[in-house]
Amino acid sequence: MPNNLVSSELRIVTAGIGPIDDALINQSSIPTTIQWRLPSDPSLAPILSSIALSDAVTKANEKALTCLTSARPHLIGIDTAANAVDLEKGTFLHAGPPIEWERTSGPLRGALIGAALLENSDETPEGAIRLFENGKFKIEPCHHRGAVGPMAGVVSHSMPMFVIEDSITGRRAYCTLNEGLGKVLRFGAYSKEVIDRLKWIEKVLAPIMHETINAGDPIELYPIVSEALQMGDECHNRNRAGTSLFIRAIGSNLIQLKRPSSDLAACFSFITSNDHFFLNLMMPAGKLAADSARDIPGSTIVVAMARNGTDFGIRLSGTGDEWFTGPCAVPKGLLFPGYGPEDANPDLGDSTIAETVGVGGFAMAAAPAIVKFVGGTSDLALTSTQAMYDITVGEHPLFRLPSLNFRGTPVGIDAALVCRTCQVPFVNTGIAGKQAGVGQIGAGLVEPPIKCFNDGLKRYGEVSKVWLTSQ
Amino acid sequence: MPNNLVSSELRIVTAGIGPIDDALINQSSIPTTIQWRLPSDPSLAPILSSIALSDAVTKANEKALTCLTSARPHLIGIDTAANAVDLEKGTFLHAGPPIEWERTSGPLRGALIGAALLENSDETPEGAIRLFENGKFKIEPCHHRGAVGPMAGVVSHSMPMFVIEDSITGRRAYCTLNEGLGKVLRFGAYSKEVIDRLKWIEKVLAPIMHETINAGDPIELYPIVSEALQMGDECHNRNRAGTSLFIRAIGSNLIQLKRPSSDLAACFSFITSNDHFFLNLMMPAGKLAADSARDIPGSTIVVAMARNGTDFGIRLSGTGDEWFTGPCAVPKGLLFPGYGPEDANPDLGDSTIAETVGVGGFAMAAAPAIVKFVGGTSDLALTSTQAMYDITVGEHPLFRLPSLNFRGTPVGIDAALVCRTCQVPFVNTGIAGKQAGVGQIGAGLVEPPIKCFNDGLKRYGEVSKVWLTSQ
Repeated sequence: MPNNLVSSELRIVTAGIGPIDDALINQSSIPTTIQWRLPSDPSLAPILSSIALSDAVTKANEKALTCLTSARPHLIGIDTAANAVDLEKGTFLHAGPPIEWERTSGPLRGALIGAALLENSDETPEGAIRLFENGKFKIEPCHHRGAVGPMAGVVSHSMPMFVIEDSITGRRAYCTLNEGLGKVLRFGAYSKEVIDRLKWIEKVLAPIMHETINAGDPIELYPIVSEALQMGDECHNRNRAGTSLFIRAIGSNLIQLKRPSSDLAACFSFITSNDHFFLNLMMPAGKLAADSARDIPGSTIVVAMARNGTDFGIRLSGTGDEWFTGPCAVPKGLLFPGYGPEDANPDLGDSTIAETVGVGGFAMAAAPAIVKFVGGTSDLALTSTQAMYDITVGEHPLFRLPSLNFRGTPVGIDAALVCRTCQVPFVNTGIAGKQAGVGQIGAGLVEPPIKCFNDGLKRYGEVSKVWLTSQ
Repeated sequence: MPNNLVSSELRIVTAGIGPIDDALINQSSIPTTIQWRLPSDPSLAPILSSIALSDAVTKANEKALTCLTSARPHLIGIDTAANAVDLEKGTFLHAGPPIEWERTSGPLRGALIGAALLENSDETPEGAIRLFENGKFKIEPCHHRGAVGPMAGVVSHSMPMFVIEDSITGRRAYCTLNEGLGKVLRFGAYSKEVIDRLKWIEKVLAPIMHETINAGDPIELYPIVSEALQMGDECHNRNRAGTSLFIRAIGSNLIQLKRPSSDLAACFSFITSNDHFFLNLMMPAGKLAADSARDIPGSTIVVAMARNGTDFGIRLSGTGDEWFTGPCAVPKGLLFPGYGPEDANPDLGDSTIAETVGVGGFAMAAAPAIVKFVGGTSDLALTSTQAMYDITVGEHPLFRLPSLNFRGTPVGIDAALVCRTCQVPFVNTGIAGKQAGVGQIGAGLVEPPIKCFNDGLKRYGEVSKVWLTSQ
C-alpha cells in the first residue's frame, strides 16, 4: 500500500498558506492551490455566514446591481455652484467624507484657501485660514450636495459646474470643469496662475461650453465611456480617448457659435491640451449610477468611495447616509522629477466613484498603457481587473474589455466579499504634494483601508438584522 | 536499463507534424513541439541556405531595417494630383502592381469609371469604358508616382492629395483624402452622391485643410501613429484614435480660419464622422518609410505589398523596381447585412503599406477591438502580431504594443523568412463588392499568395549571386 501510494502520482492540494506552496515548489511538486483567506475581522464571521446564506441579501444586491448599471447620464449644460448645488457664499465643498478643518491635509487646505481667494480677491491666504479656523467659513462634502470633485474637490459659490442628468431617474449630478494637471487648485495649488485660470474658466470656457452643449442634443456620456474603454482608457487616470471623443462630439457646434474665433480656439486648445478633461464628466456620470443604487434595504453593495486626504470613506447601499472611514494610505507610483515618496499626500478625491461604478482600477485591463503613468508592467493592468471579479456581484453590460474578449468590467463592489476575501478594491489615482500650494507630484495605485469595510459591515449587521434572519 | 527508462520521466520532442502531436496528446503526453515547416518551394533550398549563412545579407537587412524605421514623415499641405504627382489628363493611377484594363476587377473598374466622370461631367460610364478599352485612357500604379491609394486607389488629374515629406530623406509621398465608408469611389462606387462628395472634397475640404495645415507647424505623423497604438488602433482598419488625435492637432487652427463657420464646421464633421480619415495620412507616411529602404543591394526585405484586386504584388529591397505577383485571395471576415462571401472581390489596395512598415495586421495586439470589424476573438489580435515576429528582422523603436509590455511591433518582413517558414504576412483589409458600383461590403483578414515571395526570392538569387557567394 505505501508502495502504491508512492508509485502512483501524488496530487497535493493546499489552501491559502503561501509558505507551504513555496516549500512544495522547492521540492519540485506543484500543488493545486485553493485561494482562501481569513476574513478581515474574525468578529464578522457570523454576519458573513448569515449574508452568504441569505437569498434576500442576494436579491437586494441584484437590485443594486441593476440600478448601478442602468443609469444613462447625459450632459445638459453648465451652471454656477450657487444655482447647481445651492451653494451659499462662505460654504465650500470638498472631496471625501466629512472632516473638520483641523484634520484637513495640506492639499485640501491649499485648495480651500485658493477657492477663498477666488471668491474674494481682497482676501489673503492667512485671512482665509483664520476664517476656516474660526468657523466663519464652513466646509461640507461634495457628495452631500449631489456633486463629486476630483482630488481636493473644492467647489465655491461662483464656480461653474457641469450639469449631468440621468434619463432613467431624472436625478442630476454636478462637477466642476477640469483645470489640467500640475499646478491646479484640485491638487492644492493656489498661486496667481491657478486663480487666473479659474477666472478664465468661469468667464470664457464655461459660457462657451454651455452654449455649445445647448446647440445640439444632450451629450450621452456612457457611449463615450464605453468607447473609450475600447481605446485604451480606464476612465479614471487615463481619459485621453474620452477627452478626444468628447471634443469630436462638440467641435462642430463649438465652431459655429457667434463668438470671437480666438476664444473658441482657446477653448478647443484648453480641452485638447488636457487629457483629463473628460474625468470631470465621467465622475458625475458615475455619481448618478452610484446614487441610483443607494438605500436598497439589505444590500451590501458599496455606493460611494471617497477620500478627503485624511480619511477614506465608503457608504453602503443598505446603511443609508452613514460614512465608514479609515486612514487614507499614501499612493505608490510614479512621481514627477524632483519629488520623493516623503513629499506625497495621503490619498485624496471623489474620483474613486470610477471604481465604484466599474471603471478606473476595475477596468485597467482596457488600458495597459496606463502603467506608464501609474507605474508597473502591463500585466498589472490585466491582473488588477481580474482580481476585482472576486469582490463584485456582476459585470457591466455597457463597459466591455477588448483584451478579455469583451467581458464586462467587474461592477458592484460587495462589502461582504471584500471582508470575506480581504481583497480591497484596486484604486488608481493622482498624487498631490502634501504641502498646501505644491500641486500634483505624480500618479499611482493605492488601497483603501479594510477598516471602512469592516465598520460598514458591522453597522450593516445591526441595521439589517431583519434581512439576515428572515430566510 | 529499460526499467530505468520507463520509471524516469519521458520527454518527447516533436518537429512540425501536427498529427503526431495530436496522437501524443490523446495518450496524455504533452510533447515539446518545435515549429518546423518545409520551405515554401523546395527549389529555394540552396538560396535559403546561402542567405542564412551570409553576414553580408544580414548587414544589408540591418541597413534596410534602419531605413524603414528612421523615417519621420510630416504633413505639409495639399495639392492637386496634377501638381503633386505630375498627373496628366487621361492618365489614372490605381492601387497595386501594374495591370491591363482587361484584367481589372469590378471595383477597380468602377473607381476608374467614377474618376473619368469626375474629370468630365459630360462623360458616360459606357463612354469611359470605351476610352479605357481602346487605350485612350491610360492606367498606372500609384506606387510608380510616389503615391499610395487605399482599395482601388484611383487618382485623377484634378483630385487633391495630401503632401507628406520625410524630414530625414526630404522625399515626398502623396495620397488622396479619405472619403468615408460604404458607397465611395475607392470601393468601386461611382453614383452621383460619390461624385458630388469628391467635388465637395476638392472645392471645400481640400482648400480648408491646406490652409489649416499651413496655419501651424507641419504635423508630425509618426507621433500620432505611435500614440494611436496606445489607444486601440492598429492604424490600417482601425484609425479611430488616429483620426481623433489628428482632429485635436488641427482643430484650433481650423477654427480660426477666415472662412464661413458653416464650411469649417462641415469639414470638422466630415472628418469626425469618418474614423478612417487618418488612414490616408498613415499610408503615405508608411510609403516614405518603405521607400527609404528600397534599393539596398543584398537585402531580402519587403519594401512594398500592394493589390490591384486581381494580382497581389510585392517588391524587395534588393531587386529594384520589379514586382512579384500572385493571385489575390478573397478576404474572410465580417460582411455588411445583405451580402454573402460570393459578393466579395479579391483583395485590393495599397493599404498593405501598413503591414510593410510594422502596423496593421502586425500591430493587431494593440487593437483587440478590431475583431468587431474584421471578425474573430480578441486572442486573434494577439496571436497575429506574435506570429509576425517570426518573419521580421526587427522591432519598431517608435511603434510599441502596450499589451506586450511595450514591445516594438514586428517590422521588416524578410522574404527569406517567409519562404523558410511558409508563414505569410497577416493583412487586415476592407472588402469591396466585386461588381463595379457596389462599394464596400465588409472587412476581414486575408493572406498574400506565397508565390510572390517565392518568385521574389528566385529573382533575388539571380541578381544577388555576388552577395551570396562573397562570404
